[in-house]
Amino acid sequence: VSIRVVIVGAAGYAGAELASLLLRHSQARIVGIFGSARRDEHAPTLSEVFGRFRGLLDLPIRAASVSEIKACEPDAVFLATPHLASIELATGLLEGSASRRCVVFDLSAAFRLKDARAYPSRYGFEHPRPDLLAKAVYGLPELWRDAVRHADLVAVPGCYPTSAILPLAPLVRAGAVAKRPDGRCVRPIIDSTSGVSGAGRTPELRSMFCEVHQKPYAVLSHRHQPEIDAYVGVETLFTPHLGPYERGILSTIHVELERGWNEMRVRDVLAEAYAGEMFVRLCRADVWPSVGDVRGTNYCDIAIAVDEPWSHLLMVSAIDNLVKGAAGQAVQCMNVRFGFSEATGLKF
Amino acid sequence: VSIRVVIVGAAGYAGAELASLLLRHSQARIVGIFGSARRDEHAPTLSEVFGRFRGLLDLPIRAASVSEIKACEPDAVFLATPHLASIELATGLLEGSASRRCVVFDLSAAFRLKDARAYPSRYGFEHPRPDLLAKAVYGLPELWRDAVRHADLVAVPGCYPTSAILPLAPLVRAGAVAKRPDGRCVRPIIDSTSGVSGAGRTPELRSMFCEVHQKPYAVLSHRHQPEIDAYVGVETLFTPHLGPYERGILSTIHVELERGWNEMRVRDVLAEAYAGEMFVRLCRADVWPSVGDVRGTNYCDIAIAVDEPWSHLLMVSAIDNLVKGAAGQAVQCMNVRFGFSEATGLKF
Amino acid sequence: VSIRVVIVGAAGYAGAELASLLLRHSQARIVGIFGSARRDEHAPTLSEVFGRFRGLLDLPIRAASVSEIKACEPDAVFLATPHLASIELATGLLEGSASRRCVVFDLSAAFRLKDARAYPSRYGFEHPRPDLLAKAVYGLPELWRDAVRHADLVAVPGCYPTSAILPLAPLVRAGAVAKRPDGRCVRPIIDSTSGVSGAGRTPELRSMFCEVHQKPYAVLSHRHQPEIDAYVGVETLFTPHLGPYERGILSTIHVELERGWNEMRVRDVLAEAYAGEMFVRLCRADVWPSVGDVRGTNYCDIAIAVDEPWSHLLMVSAIDNLVKGAAGQAVQCMNVRFGFSEATGLKF
Amino acid sequence: VSIRVVIVGAAGYAGAELASLLLRHSQARIVGIFGSARRDEHAPTLSEVFGRFRGLLDLPIRAASVSEIKACEPDAVFLATPHLASIELATGLLEGSASRRCVVFDLSAAFRLKDARAYPSRYGFEHPRPDLLAKAVYGLPELWRDAVRHADLVAVPGCYPTSAILPLAPLVRAGAVAKRPDGRCVRPIIDSTSGVSGAGRTPELRSMFCEVHQKPYAVLSHRHQPEIDAYVGVETLFTPHLGPYERGILSTIHVELERGWNEMRVRDVLAEAYAGEMFVRLCRADVWPSVGDVRGTNYCDIAIAVDEPWSHLLMVSAIDNLVKGAAGQAVQCMNVRFGFSEATGLKF
Repeated sequence: VSIRVVIVGAAGYAGAELASLLLRHSQARIVGIFGSARRDEHAPTLSEVFGRFRGLLDLPIRAASVSEIKACEPDAVFLATPHLASIELATGLLEGSASRRCVVFDLSAAFRLKDARAYPSRYGFEHPRPDLLAKAVYGLPELWRDAVRHADLVAVPGCYPTSAILPLAPLVRAGAVAKRPDGRCVRPIIDSTSGVSGAGRTPELRSMFCEVHQKPYAVLSHRHQPEIDAYVGVETLFTPHLGPYERGILSTIHVELERGWNEMRVRDVLAEAYAGEMFVRLCRADVWPSVGDVRGTNYCDIAIAVDEPWSHLLMVSAIDNLVKGAAGQAVQCMNVRFGFSEATGLKF
Repeated sequence: VSIRVVIVGAAGYAGAELASLLLRHSQARIVGIFGSARRDEHAPTLSEVFGRFRGLLDLPIRAASVSEIKACEPDAVFLATPHLASIELATGLLEGSASRRCVVFDLSAAFRLKDARAYPSRYGFEHPRPDLLAKAVYGLPELWRDAVRHADLVAVPGCYPTSAILPLAPLVRAGAVAKRPDGRCVRPIIDSTSGVSGAGRTPELRSMFCEVHQKPYAVLSHRHQPEIDAYVGVETLFTPHLGPYERGILSTIHVELERGWNEMRVRDVLAEAYAGEMFVRLCRADVWPSVGDVRGTNYCDIAIAVDEPWSHLLMVSAIDNLVKGAAGQAVQCMNVRFGFSEATGLKF
Repeated sequence: VSIRVVIVGAAGYAGAELASLLLRHSQARIVGIFGSARRDEHAPTLSEVFGRFRGLLDLPIRAASVSEIKACEPDAVFLATPHLASIELATGLLEGSASRRCVVFDLSAAFRLKDARAYPSRYGFEHPRPDLLAKAVYGLPELWRDAVRHADLVAVPGCYPTSAILPLAPLVRAGAVAKRPDGRCVRPIIDSTSGVSGAGRTPELRSMFCEVHQKPYAVLSHRHQPEIDAYVGVETLFTPHLGPYERGILSTIHVELERGWNEMRVRDVLAEAYAGEMFVRLCRADVWPSVGDVRGTNYCDIAIAVDEPWSHLLMVSAIDNLVKGAAGQAVQCMNVRFGFSEATGLKF
Repeated sequence: VSIRVVIVGAAGYAGAELASLLLRHSQARIVGIFGSARRDEHAPTLSEVFGRFRGLLDLPIRAASVSEIKACEPDAVFLATPHLASIELATGLLEGSASRRCVVFDLSAAFRLKDARAYPSRYGFEHPRPDLLAKAVYGLPELWRDAVRHADLVAVPGCYPTSAILPLAPLVRAGAVAKRPDGRCVRPIIDSTSGVSGAGRTPELRSMFCEVHQKPYAVLSHRHQPEIDAYVGVETLFTPHLGPYERGILSTIHVELERGWNEMRVRDVLAEAYAGEMFVRLCRADVWPSVGDVRGTNYCDIAIAVDEPWSHLLMVSAIDNLVKGAAGQAVQCMNVRFGFSEATGLKF
C-alpha cells in the first residue's frame, strides 16, 4: 500500500530534502511538486533547480494553488512554504468533504504556537486562523506521538526547538529544574550554533560564502524563543549563532538542578523518556555529540554531564537542521500518521 | 535471498562508506567488520570510531586475518586495506575449495594493473602475485560489466581513474582522439581536483584543516597515471589537485579531436555508450557538473563542449570519490556479480 | 611626503581590500570613501558595512559623483566600480586643467582592452570612449612598468589574467610556444580555480554558502578570455572553475613547447624576466604553489615542470585574487606611478 | 632604535604568526629562529615549512638550546614551545648577569598560574619552578600593563582566557556579579567556539579536515578553566567547542547581575575600563561580534545586552586566537615592555 504525496516549496532547502527522502520512501509516491510562489513565469523542473535530482525527479515545479494541489489527489501534502502561504494553503486543503481530505504537514511556523498573540511580535502578522492553531498538532513524535496519529494538520517543529525540547522537556516534566525564590524556574540557558542552510535559499548577504563567520544573531529576540518555551514547559534563554558550515545544529544547554538531582537521576529520566525511540541517541558518559555524527540523518544525539558541587547540568544535543529539524521529522510524522513503520525512508 | 558480507578496513573512510551503504542494502547482511591492522590491542566498535554509527552498527572492529574472515562464512569480502594487506588477504581468501569460496572486492590498487612492472616505480613494491593480476577483473561495470559478472576477484577502480575513464574511454574506442605525426595520439589532458577524504584517514600534515588549500600535488608522478592510461586506452597527462572540501572529484579534460569530429558526434558516442546506464548522467548543453550534484551518490556526471574552430573537446566529469570512486562502485560490482538489481542500496 | 587618495566602490570586496591596504600605507592618506551607487538613501560608514573597520575607518560611504570626488582634491582615485560607472567617473576625473588632475586606477574591465570591438560581445555594452582605451595603460608593473610610471589612467588587470599572463607572457615573447602546421601557436590551456570572493559581494544564488561547490563556469565564454589573449600574446584556452574557499586563484597551465626548449631553458627565461621582482616568486623544482601561500599577499608564485619526452610544459601559478589580482596590484601601480618604493604598504 | 628578537617554536602556528608580525615590526629585528625540538636531524628553513615565507624569511629553524639562543644576543625571546620546554629554556635564559639578560615572552601555560598546585591535574606535570611562577607577569596589557612594563618573564595569556577575561574582569572588580545565598558568586557561564588552529600543528585525527565538525570537547575539564577563574576573579563554568574554520574564538558569556545593575551600568563599566585601549572595541547596541571582524587582527570585540526583567547579562567576545590570543598579544607585551608605541607592528 502506498500513499500519494505532494511537496509545496520544493525549490527551498527543506523542500528539496523532503523530495530526497520521499523519493526513496517505499510507501509514498510523489505525485506533485509545487513552488512556494503563487505564479511562476516559467516552471523549471526540480532537477534544473538542484542538479542532484537529474534523472531522478524531473517533474516541473508548478505554481502552488489549492485547486492544483487537490487535483493531484494527495493523501499527504507537505508545505515548506512561508508562514502566510502555509496558512492560505492549509486552510483550503483542510476544507471540504472528509472523503477527499488530505493530511497537511506544515514546516513553517504558521501553526506551531497555540497562543495567537505571539505572532504579531515575533512573526510580524496577525494570525488569521486561531481556530487552526487550536486544531494543529505539534509534530514531535517522541513527545506527542498519540496526537500525531490522529492529526489532520501537523505543525512540524522548528530546527532549534527540536534540539532544545528533546533534551529539556522530560527533565522539566520530572521537576529537575531548580526554582527561584519567586517560584519561577531558573531559566535553562540554550546556546545553539546552526549551519547556514538554516537561513534558507533566498540570496541574502548574510548567507554568502565570504560573509559567514561564527557569530551570534537575533540575540534576545529570535522567533523560536516562544516555541521553545511553550514546548519545553518553562521559560528559557535561547541564543542562536551561525557557524561556517552547511548543515547541523549543536545546542549547549545549562540547567540549574533542583535539590536532590544528580547525574544518574538525570540520565535515568532521559533514558526512560527515550527508551525504544529510534531517533534519539543518549550518549554514554564522556562521549559528546558532533554535528558530523548526525549529518544527513534523522537522529538527535544527546549527552549530559553534571557538575555536582554546583548542581549544574550541562547537556549538548545535535541534529541535522534539514532532517530531524525539518524534512526528516515531517516524514517521521507522516509515518506515524499513516501507520507506517516509523523509520521508513529514514534509515541512513 | 541475501548474501553474507565482510568489510575489512572499516576504520578508514572508504570502509566506513561501505558500511553505510551495505547497512541499507536489502540483499546483503554485514557479518563481520575488520580493521586493516593485523593486530589491534583493543578492538573498538565501528560506532566508537565513527559516532554516526551509534545504535546502527556496534560490532567490534577485529584484527583481520584470513582465518577469522573465513570463519564469518562470507559470500563477499570487501578489502579497503593497504595494497600489501590486500594481496595477502585476497590470496588467502581465494584459495581452497570452490564450494566455500567468496568473491573478493578489493578497493586498493593491488590488482588494478595488468602489468606487474608498474608496481615498483609507482607503488614501491615488487608485485608478489602477477598471476592474480591476470585473474582480476577491473570493476567498472559500465565498461566491463560482463567480466564483473563472473569475477572472483574484482579490482575496484581508483577515484581519479573513474572520473577520467568514463568520459574518455568510449571516445578513444571510437577513434575520436587526434593523432600526432608520429602516429601516437595527442595526449588528453586531465586536470582534476579532489576533496580531502581522498587522502585517507591517517593523520598527516597535508590533511589537517589549516593546511588544506587549493594546490597541485604529485605533478607528473601520481600513482593513478598508469591506471588511467591502461583503461582509457591511450597515454594521457593527469595532474591532481587538492581542494578544501570533504568529498568529490571534478576532472576537466581536454582532447584534441581527430578530423571529422564535432560536438554532435562526440555527444552521440557518449550517449550511445551510456544509454541505459543508471549511474552515468550526460548533461545537456550548457549544464556543467558540480561536485555538489553528485555528493553522496553513485553518479558520474559528464558534460562536453567542443570549440569547433580548434577541434578542441572540453569535458568535465564529477563523482563522489568515496561512492562512485570507491565504496559505491564496489557495491555496484557486488550487485552485478550476484545478480541483484544494479542500483540496490545505491538509490539516494 | 604623502598623497591624497579616494576609493570609489568601497562597499565591495576589492574596494574594502583597497581600504585595508591604503590605511597602512605610509605615503597615502585616504581622504574620501564613495560607494559605487550614484545615490544612497542613507550613507553607512565603512565600518558599518565591514565590521573589521570599526575604530579604523569610520568615514561615511558617500554617493559617487565626479564633483564630490574632485572636491576631495585627490592625487589618486581608485575605482572599484562596475564597468560603466568606471567609464563615466574616469571620463570626468581626467578632464579639466592638468594642474588639478588626478591619476585614475580603475579595477573594472572598462579600460583593459585596446580593441573596443570586444566589449559588446563580452561585456554587453558598446564602449563609448575608445579614445580612453588608447590612452589607458595596462597596470601589470612586472611587464609594463615604464608605461605605468607615466600613466594618467591605469587599467588594473583582472584576477585570472594576472595569474595567466605572468607565467605565460615571457615565454611567448621568447618564442617557447610550439607552432601548428598552419603557423598559429598551439593554444596554451589554462585551467583556473578561484575562490568565491572573485564573484563580488552582490547577493546571488551562486555565491551562497550552501551553493558553492567545485565546478566549472562560463566554459568557452568567460569575459577574461580576450584580456588574457591580448596580454599573453597568443590565443589561449581559458576555463575558470569555482572552488569552496574565500580567496585565491590557482591556474594550471599547459604549453606545448617549440623544438629546442627544455625545462632549464624555460626556467632561465622566467628567472631572467622576474629577476629583481619582489612580487613574483619562482618556486624551485618540486615545490608547487598553493593558494594558502599567497593568501593576503601581493605575491604571484609560479612553478614549472617539463615532461621532456612530450615537450610538454606544465606551469602552476597562485595569487590572492583580491590582492595581486585587484587591490594590491592597484596599490603597486600607485607606488610605481608616484615614485614610492614599490612594496610600500604591501609587506605582509 | 631597534631590538634583537628570537623566536623559539617557529614551526607551529603561533610561532609562525610571531614571525609574520615581527617581520613587519619597525623596531624589532629577528636574529634567530628555533624549533621546539631539542634536536633536529636536518634544519629546514621557515619558508620550507610555511611556503608563505618564501623570499621573506629563509632562515633555518635550528634546534633550540639556551646557549644557541644566547649566542644570538637577543633582547627579547619568544617561546612558542611546549610547557616543559618553556620552563627549561626560560630558566636558562633568565639566569646570569643582568647586563646580558633578555626578556622572555612565553606563550605556553608554563608560567600563567600563580598556584603550582594546579599543574599536576590540569597539565600533567609537577611544576619544577614555583619561584618563577611568582616572578612571572600575566601579559594582558589592558588589565596589567604596569606589571608588564617591568617584567623579565611574561606569561602570555591563553586564547580562551583572553576572550573571557577581557569582558568579565572589569565587571567582577566592579561587583556586578550576583551572589548566591552561600556568599559565592553565581558562576558566569562561558560557551566558547574556537577555530581549528587552536589545536596546534601536530597531526592528530581531531584536526583533520574531514573530522572537524561543530562539537564540544574537554567538557568540565579544560586546562584553561583555572587560568580563566584566576584572572576573572570568580569561579566560572567554561565549555569549549570546536568549529569548522581556521581562526578565531567566539565566547558567549552569561552573567547573573547583582541587584541594581542594568545594561547602562554594565556598559559604563566596560567603557571606562577600556577607554583609550586600542585593541578592545566595545560594540554599540545591537551590533554583535563575529570572528570574521577580528580575523588577522589584534582586536577583542565585545558586545553586551541585558535581559532586564531577569537581570541577565549576555556578553559576546571575539578574538583571533593566533593574534590577540597568542602572537599579537605577545608582541603587544613586547611593545609595552620596551616602551614602543603599543600598536607597532599590530596595525592591520
